Amino acid sequence: MNYKSIIYLVGVLTTTIGIAQTNPLKVTEDFKPSSVNQQGKLYPQVNSEGRVRASILAPQANKVQLDLGGTKYDMVKDEKGIWTGVSDPQDEGFHYYQLNIDGASVPDPGTVYFYGAGRLGSAIEIPAADQEFYAMKDVPHGLVSENIYFSKLTNSFRRCFVYTPANYNEDSKTRFPVLYLQHGSFEDETGWAVQGKANLILDNLIASEKANPMIVVMDNGYAYKPQTNTSRPESIFEEVVINEIIPMIDSKFRTIANREHRAIAGLSMGANQTMRIMMNHLDTFSYYGGFSGTSNYPSIDAIDVNTFLDGKFKEGNALNKKIKLFWLGLGTKEPIPFPASVGAFRTMLEQQGIRYAYYESPETAHEWLTWRRCLNQFVTQLFK
Amino acid sequence: MNYKSIIYLVGVLTTTIGIAQTNPLKVTEDFKPSSVNQQGKLYPQVNSEGRVRASILAPQANKVQLDLGGTKYDMVKDEKGIWTGVSDPQDEGFHYYQLNIDGASVPDPGTVYFYGAGRLGSAIEIPAADQEFYAMKDVPHGLVSENIYFSKLTNSFRRCFVYTPANYNEDSKTRFPVLYLQHGSFEDETGWAVQGKANLILDNLIASEKANPMIVVMDNGYAYKPQTNTSRPESIFEEVVINEIIPMIDSKFRTIANREHRAIAGLSMGANQTMRIMMNHLDTFSYYGGFSGTSNYPSIDAIDVNTFLDGKFKEGNALNKKIKLFWLGLGTKEPIPFPASVGAFRTMLEQQGIRYAYYESPETAHEWLTWRRCLNQFVTQLFK
Repeated sequence: MNYKSIIYLVGVLTTTIGIAQTNPLKVTEDFKPSSVNQQGKLYPQVNSEGRVRASILAPQANKVQLDLGGTKYDMVKDEKGIWTGVSDPQDEGFHYYQLNIDGASVPDPGTVYFYGAGRLGSAIEIPAADQEFYAMKDVPHGLVSENIYFSKLTNSFRRCFVYTPANYNEDSKTRFPVLYLQHGSFEDETGWAVQGKANLILDNLIASEKANPMIVVMDNGYAYKPQTNTSRPESIFEEVVINEIIPMIDSKFRTIANREHRAIAGLSMGANQTMRIMMNHLDTFSYYGGFSGTSNYPSIDAIDVNTFLDGKFKEGNALNKKIKLFWLGLGTKEPIPFPASVGAFRTMLEQQGIRYAYYESPETAHEWLTWRRCLNQFVTQLFK
Repeated sequence: MNYKSIIYLVGVLTTTIGIAQTNPLKVTEDFKPSSVNQQGKLYPQVNSEGRVRASILAPQANKVQLDLGGTKYDMVKDEKGIWTGVSDPQDEGFHYYQLNIDGASVPDPGTVYFYGAGRLGSAIEIPAADQEFYAMKDVPHGLVSENIYFSKLTNSFRRCFVYTPANYNEDSKTRFPVLYLQHGSFEDETGWAVQGKANLILDNLIASEKANPMIVVMDNGYAYKPQTNTSRPESIFEEVVINEIIPMIDSKFRTIANREHRAIAGLSMGANQTMRIMMNHLDTFSYYGGFSGTSNYPSIDAIDVNTFLDGKFKEGNALNKKIKLFWLGLGTKEPIPFPASVGAFRTMLEQQGIRYAYYESPETAHEWLTWRRCLNQFVTQLFK
């Protein structure tokens, strides 16, 4: 790489507008446009340290900030009215962020938008050392299909995205196993195939014969009973999965419709939800993946197997015979309470003598690079 | 509807910040959240007059404007720092817009984002009297599949969206005709299935047996020869369609791969592009649709049939025998030069004795409601 380090004197620039940030900042000047920018947009940029440089024209603004990873970085204005700011180094991977213009929190006009944190917003991609596994390559690509359906249980239109592997369309006879894959809280059914890059991860693994071809169904984990005036929202996602989604997928796609060829996994809230669904329906699924979450969340206390999930983990031997894979993953930098909560769950599994696989994503927190890596590991062990 | 008219005294509110807009504005107070808002977002809103009310929290801002339909409407701040503004009545249908905060043009955090005008931005949907034809209904829904492919001709990854009708998955044998459907300038392959609602239009028409089931392929009209240092960008979209996209679609999907079962259509720039492709490849397509555009654009002059498109319209009788449908559509409020340019083209067709169908979308301009309506009319005449 051809780059040079310079002393970036934010102090000099800020004197004109009196922002408090006056420490000289040593920044490596090898910034490149982020890979999730809109076509042709030069900003935001990322450098080799993982710093983010944002930039926006706002000539009449009083204060503009880059709001990233829980910190609001003051940006500074040049003579053309363009505000620019640089963040601290970020972890590798994908991070949501916003710009703040005079108190208005808005998406950066430079980036593509992603649904997360309960909104469509901007994001930055810090290139990871292992990014090849989710890169777009010249391999056969599967399709990601938007599937709209009316759900009688929720009395609403719902949508899932369905990945079919590249060889799905090679003939009209071959049938495939299915992974049901769920997003986390304040995310939606778009997460896995957009920021999660599930389709590219599967394309690459299948092309290199590290994973078996499979269908992946990504639905929305928020599903509620139709509300009356007096009732509170009651989640019926489990019923929707079992009684609506699975029968629909088995009728619309060439699936192998039995428990030996069905897996269910999720991240964070989705890990919690899918673990309950798995344990309540061992006749339906035989593989489970929990990424950054378990059903005892947010508790970090020792688990009472007699009461936890209605005693579903009491019979360790029986579960070992029935479950083909019980897989857990976590980032090494996850915040409280995830490490202790997942830790308490693992302790319970070990006390019960229940076999499970455990993976740690190095140097990542409760974010999408953790989950991309989890998926990349998990699916290689499915349907074998 | 239960609504009431009140005098909305913008003048009173504006005195505190000195905005020039002081005329009392009579606004019908029956605003409802726009149908293309993000889930749970109350703003922007639309009333029965087609006015748009935008709102954003920006406590420290000096000036906030709603930038819609070529006009920047000053918004006014309340004591909580929330800026609100109301537009003039808009045409029915779909309109892109932005907010302007102290000179920064940004998407409204309230809406879903759409690719148009060369960027991902906000949009508003003004309910149309005929909106039922593109409404999401409890009918069988087709799939919209994202299809990633590597294009050797452009040396780049490209993407198209492919609509397959609901009965595509009912069996594994039935084969279908294909419509190739293109977006306009500064739009992309997402346009037709997102703001164009092509999938819902087809779902509804097919469910009511007004259109035959068909596959619809929506690709990106920007395709260039790989650039050298000395060369200028040279569009090779026609070559990509003929040599890469069609063979790929015919191999991945159950198409009827002949000219009698292939249509090509587009809007604006896409109408221009697809007309050239149609006329150069009458062995490949037998149906054509041009929505708000023709290949003589932007000229409004009389067309010389000897030179126009290399004389492809010279033999009227031969074309009448070869082409099954030549269909043109236009909005009644289209701006210069579209009415005169399409008019000059129609005059040429008539002078040559070439049969064509012509549709006008009432009270719409060069916008998506025109194109939704065009598609809704056009596809009922395909493959019959």
